[in-house]
Amino acid sequence: MPEYRTTSLAKALPATVPFVGPEAQERLLEKTFSARIGANENVFGPSANVTQVISEMAAQAWKYGDPEFFELRQALAEHYGVGPEHIMAGEGIDGLFGYLVRLFVGPADKVVTSAGAYPTFNFHVAGYGGELITVPYQDDHEDTEALIEAAKLHNPKLVYLANPDNPMGTWWESEVVEAMVEKMPRESLLVLDEAYGEFAPGGVMPSIDPSDNRVLRFRTFSKAYGLAGIRVGYAIGEPGLINEFNKIRNHFGLGCVAQAACVTALSDTLHLNSVVAGVREARESLYQIASDNGLEALASATNFVAIDCGRDGDFAKAVLDSLVAQGIFVRMPGVAPLNRCIRVSVGYPEDLALFATALPKALETAAR
Amino acid sequence: MPEYRTTSLAKALPATVPFVGPEAQERLLEKTFSARIGANENVFGPSANVTQVISEMAAQAWKYGDPEFFELRQALAEHYGVGPEHIMAGEGIDGLFGYLVRLFVGPADKVVTSAGAYPTFNFHVAGYGGELITVPYQDDHEDTEALIEAAKLHNPKLVYLANPDNPMGTWWESEVVEAMVEKMPRESLLVLDEAYGEFAPGGVMPSIDPSDNRVLRFRTFSKAYGLAGIRVGYAIGEPGLINEFNKIRNHFGLGCVAQAACVTALSDTLHLNSVVAGVREARESLYQIASDNGLEALASATNFVAIDCGRDGDFAKAVLDSLVAQGIFVRMPGVAPLNRCIRVSVGYPEDLALFATALPKALETAAR
Repeated sequence: MPEYRTTSLAKALPATVPFVGPEAQERLLEKTFSARIGANENVFGPSANVTQVISEMAAQAWKYGDPEFFELRQALAEHYGVGPEHIMAGEGIDGLFGYLVRLFVGPADKVVTSAGAYPTFNFHVAGYGGELITVPYQDDHEDTEALIEAAKLHNPKLVYLANPDNPMGTWWESEVVEAMVEKMPRESLLVLDEAYGEFAPGGVMPSIDPSDNRVLRFRTFSKAYGLAGIRVGYAIGEPGLINEFNKIRNHFGLGCVAQAACVTALSDTLHLNSVVAGVREARESLYQIASDNGLEALASATNFVAIDCGRDGDFAKAVLDSLVAQGIFVRMPGVAPLNRCIRVSVGYPEDLALFATALPKALETAAR
Repeated sequence: MPEYRTTSLAKALPATVPFVGPEAQERLLEKTFSARIGANENVFGPSANVTQVISEMAAQAWKYGDPEFFELRQALAEHYGVGPEHIMAGEGIDGLFGYLVRLFVGPADKVVTSAGAYPTFNFHVAGYGGELITVPYQDDHEDTEALIEAAKLHNPKLVYLANPDNPMGTWWESEVVEAMVEKMPRESLLVLDEAYGEFAPGGVMPSIDPSDNRVLRFRTFSKAYGLAGIRVGYAIGEPGLINEFNKIRNHFGLGCVAQAACVTALSDTLHLNSVVAGVREARESLYQIASDNGLEALASATNFVAIDCGRDGDFAKAVLDSLVAQGIFVRMPGVAPLNRCIRVSVGYPEDLALFATALPKALETAAR
């Protein structure tokens, strides 16, 4: 490859990236997965009202989306009881993380997260030359005390917390997160990733003043609303901080089809409730499948369950490989000791039945 | 607003940005535009096959899009007779420009473009701290010779050329662009924006070796394919350069709905041809409307026509303001002497009839 005059930062970045979709695995295996329960997608999908809006909007797809996301932000504002100036939308939480990191992090700027927490956030931090400082999970929970301690020690620009957590599915009660916000050093911003917030038990999600400048919350339509395929996330926070995104974002990045779909999704409370109930039920099934195989499943507040395979990362990887070879798409945490688990997303009963059938063989294969 | 620890670069960026959609104007005017012919959208829209695919994909919208865009890149590769390793897709050309500039441009790095050329490219250059060097248009064409001279003089990382041009609609024959590629200084990359390429007369689009490392071409589904509302653009170039995008892009930024829609759009040659013919016809109508009002329209190879209002930018702005007040959404170039024109996108005959009715009054109002 010729030498391009890219920045020294770009030259230092890895040329290969860890983003492998199930489609790439399917191409490699030369077969389609029988159960797609690895990417924490929501198999229950969007509501009928939303699919209808998408259909109706198709003929309008020649129009750019409103660059201000006016109606979507208005709908979100009403949903949360805040003003629309507290809301920014973007190309998934991932896209918004890219913008946030770009706004805050330059070479050698520090960012604190947990070892094994959301890798796409780390990808962006590395992409802007930031220095990542990690603290270990504590009993499969992100350790809010340790994160605060690290923040006090290292003076990072950003501190990341997912609640509920991915990849473990664990969560903190509202008081813990609220206390963490209170303890944040003045110089650091808490990046609160609530992608799975809608799945959490009632009362778990913290109450945070939307004008609190110590924290920025992130939510998405990709999980509970079943709209990963149109990719819309949003941030809720202090208006001055929200407005910072306008300086750099891809203003026409969200099409009119996606914006309209999300407005409708938000209004469809019955569907959301039914999805959340379905997820709760499926989690119980996953707990049961784990137990039937002599394994411990971690209690989850998300649409996935981390199942402790009872040995080390190599063993869990062997279990995962066998599941994949059997046509079951699942994933696993990338860092010890979390990687003793496999991470199984909620599916329809038939998806979980396939998993239940494949798991004993996978455990047997891995144990050889 | 509290002081956030954003980067010095972010602090230096303007807090207000010029991206105002027609929806914002409609909210201000408290009425809907009767004719939406300002953003170079394609009113003829996507084909029936594409709208059907979007409808069908709605129920699949719970799945993330393939982060490798395998099928879309395969389809594009076949379309252009190149390997898929020459293709990168992204969140519109705008999104890809953001990534490209990020890869190449850091503080004080130079970029050459034409004064009045595509502002979103400039937005990204400014956003990464780059220094923009502009050369004037020559007879309403981007001046390829002057761009090359500026490149030789300033040693920029990137040189921007749109062909056909936006906002003027003018174009260069293939030989001119091919000669420009040959003359590019070794240290600079030509950013060739061909967003309107499908509308250009036969033989106009240059023949460029897809492995040529002196140039990166950009195309979109937002214009001729009528899919601005799902926002997919792509780049064609040398595989090593294409792969650079993987280091930094939002890998799951294109949903499965958009990817599937684009694959179908690409196969629908009949629809594309009919759109291109409809655009050609509508351009002739716009020429005629200009002429009927004693104005000169610039010959265009795009889906819009720049109409010279015959006086200065203030006059053209007054014409535009009156058109907008009459419910006709049009835009205009931002820089003299281009801003003596208004820019009118192609519409249906009824859109153009509304414009034809409104223009005399607008000219009269402006002349007062």
